[in-house]
Amino acid sequence: MKTEIMTKIPNCFMCQDPMFTEVGSQYPQKIAELSVSTAILNRDWQFFRGSTILVYKRHDTELHHLSTELQHQFMDDASRVAKALEKTFPNAKLNHGLFGNTIPHLHWHMIVRRKTDPNPKSTIWESDFPKLELSDNEFQETSAAILRNLKSV
Amino acid sequence: MKTEIMTKIPNCFMCQDPMFTEVGSQYPQKIAELSVSTAILNRDWQFFRGSTILVYKRHDTELHHLSTELQHQFMDDASRVAKALEKTFPNAKLNHGLFGNTIPHLHWHMIVRRKTDPNPKSTIWESDFPKLELSDNEFQETSAAILRNLKSV
Repeated sequence: MKTEIMTKIPNCFMCQDPMFTEVGSQYPQKIAELSVSTAILNRDWQFFRGSTILVYKRHDTELHHLSTELQHQFMDDASRVAKALEKTFPNAKLNHGLFGNTIPHLHWHMIVRRKTDPNPKSTIWESDFPKLELSDNEFQETSAAILRNLKSV
Repeated sequence: MKTEIMTKIPNCFMCQDPMFTEVGSQYPQKIAELSVSTAILNRDWQFFRGSTILVYKRHDTELHHLSTELQHQFMDDASRVAKALEKTFPNAKLNHGLFGNTIPHLHWHMIVRRKTDPNPKSTIWESDFPKLELSDNEFQETSAAILRNLKSV
């Protein structure tokens, strides 16, 4: 079941289309359209390669303001992506976060952690990490690898 | 529907009972037993008053390893607690986190943020915050206030 975008807020970064464009040098990080969210690689956190954001398709701000049905669909999307990430990056550990402190549009962060991380026992914010500037090709390869596994979970 | 604890791991802090004891000076922070989780105040993060942990009742480590039904029940528990927190602390903004980097027992953090926080636009880990040592009474009053609202959502 697919839920349509019902509301777009003009100045909301996450309501806009361009960041979800599948190809193109500016936003090459799209992974897939899911039931109630769009999965994209997190441009800023690819030091933790594979880290993904599920952007909710409607402009809502709080998880608990959704209906039970939509909450369950969002959970189903998240579970599928988590399984795909686990398959793509074996031995990784996932961290999940829903904050909305900076961008008040509901989105679900999945951070792909590894035992080789500088501080695997802490959240990623407890020490600085470099912003890794991937090339468009690297973004597209990473997205494609996750998408392949998403199709089989 | 109540899911019973199926597995206890001897050395897992979150599998043990004492931290969930409703009264008693050592662990006075229990809020409620929910469908598949136990809600407790987070002892270390009461600088963000009301911050809560939903400890999953079985020893699992990853959200996406649960069955769809259990994922939905966990989401339902989380949604109820979030609504109760919103009612208890009006104008608060919730942050959600599932990490398991230190304690590998599935648990869901809810952090109660306010516009008056030192850095409301960042995660709580991006700057130091003091550990607030609440008295047993303060723990019990905070838990009781959340529980009252939990009963009406």
